Order: sequence, then C-alpha cells, then structure tokens
Amino acid sequence: MDMKVEAKWLGSRHFQAEGPSGNTVYMDAGRQDGGTGQGNRPMELLLMGLVGCTGIDISMILERMRQPLSHMKIEAVGQRRDERPQSFTEIHLTYHLEGDLQPAKAWRAIHLSEEKYCSASASLNASIIPHLVLNGKEVAPLDVVEEGLPD
Amino acid sequence: MDMKVEAKWLGSRHFQAEGPSGNTVYMDAGRQDGGTGQGNRPMELLLMGLVGCTGIDISMILERMRQPLSHMKIEAVGQRRDERPQSFTEIHLTYHLEGDLQPAKAWRAIHLSEEKYCSASASLNASIIPHLVLNGKEVAPLDVVEEGLPD
Repeated sequence: MDMKVEAKWLGSRHFQAEGPSGNTVYMDAGRQDGGTGQGNRPMELLLMGLVGCTGIDISMILERMRQPLSHMKIEAVGQRRDERPQSFTEIHLTYHLEGDLQPAKAWRAIHLSEEKYCSASASLNASIIPHLVLNGKEVAPLDVVEEGLPD
Repeated sequence: MDMKVEAKWLGSRHFQAEGPSGNTVYMDAGRQDGGTGQGNRPMELLLMGLVGCTGIDISMILERMRQPLSHMKIEAVGQRRDERPQSFTEIHLTYHLEGDLQPAKAWRAIHLSEEKYCSASASLNASIIPHLVLNGKEVAPLDVVEEGLPD
C-alpha cells in the first residue's frame, strides 16, 4: 500500500507539494534560511501530520464508544536536537477534549490511537508523551482506572 | 528549540492546523474512513515535510557549490505496513534535477542532506532510499566518484 507525494521547486526555498488527496501545500524556509515564509515549514508539517492522524483516531474511537465529544483541540510541542540534523527527540501531545466524556474512556481512546491505530506516531522516532485536559481540567492517566486494550 | 503546532477539530474527521509559519493546513480522512476529503491526509503531510526539508537543503547546498540548478522536482513513495499502525517502512526519494550540474556534486548534495542536514528524515524511522535523475537520466551513486563529507 504505497503513498506517493511530489514537490516542485518554485525557486529559492519555495516548494509546491501534492499528494493523493489532491490538496496543494506550499512549503518555504524562514527568512533566516534564505526563504520568504511563503508556505509551511517542513518540520511543522510533520507535527501537523501527527496531530491530524491521532485527532482522526480520537474522533472515530469516541464515536464508536458513544462518548459525546463537543470540542477537540490538540497541541503538539516538539523538542528538537540542538545539533544538526535538528530532529524531534520528544513530542508532547496535549488533547483538549470537551463534552460529557468519561475520563477513563478518553484516556483509552488516546492509548488506542498511540499504540494501535496512529500510523504517523509509529512513523516518527521521537518519544511521544500524551496529556489530557478534559473540560478544562488536566487528568493524569493514573487518575483513572483503565481496562486492557481490546484486540 | 521547541516547535508548537495546534489543530482544531471542525467536526467529523476534519481538522484545521496552524504552526509557527502562520500558514493554515486543513486535514481530513478519505470517504472510506468517514471523512469528506476536505484536506490533506495526515500521512501525506509526513511525506511532504520530508521532501520539503530535503528540497530546501538541496537548493541551499547546490547554491553554495555554485552548481546552477534550473529545475527540481522530488518524488516520495512511502511503503507502509499492511497491519495497523500502517507506518512507513521504506521511503524512496527520487530527485529529478535539471541544469548544468556535475553528477558527483548532485549526489554529494543529496548525501549531505540525508546524513547531516535534513531534520525531517532524521525524525522518521523508515529507511530512506535516494535516487537521482539528472537531466532526465538516472545516475546511480556508484557511477560517480564522491569526495568524503566535509565536517
């Protein structure tokens, strides 16, 4: 099951990319690297792919669990090496969920995404550390009793 | 040196993401996963980040080497696991370069990006396999004599 993406150079540090969805993404470096900021930084696309992937999982899993989600926002903070290549070493994912959700089910959805479904987190070699903020309040994973993961 | 990205859920499988560049990216699942295709697939963003990162490197390195690049297109084909999570196992990167470039310098730029500069390839745990097509003709790395990488 291959996936193909193509990027065309537009001059300087500017690129135009397309993939199977047909949606174009422009990429560029910042001014300090000779770019003009006319697009996304490549490294932010990695974090966006990660939050999109786990976000889609969470929306599907909570739906299947009949947990009524009203709002969701996911924040990713990627820590990078100081030396080149400046790859991500650790990524903190904070899931801000709102709705009449059981905390244990919310954590279960997060764990199912991270351990079983999310292709993007499994493609990255950084440590991924999840956090849950449910209806404005941080909930630690140890505060809830979780059942084992289903097959 | 942290990088922060945020994605907001727009309902169903649809997300709106923003990062330090300020450029918005929409993400969505395909119809088979309950989405409506109103955005990029998260996994294609990973490949786009990779080609953008190495493409920016190549444009900078060839500039510094005074190699006149007239066109560049980079294609990424990501092979994925059949089982979940369907992470990338192998990514073939084909650099289509045009211009009056020395083949050895073109390969050197590719190797410098992959081994020293490109933060995105160092963040992915797939094997990345480069190919060079120079002025329409495939050039194998063994066809050129390459000097050692500089410090």
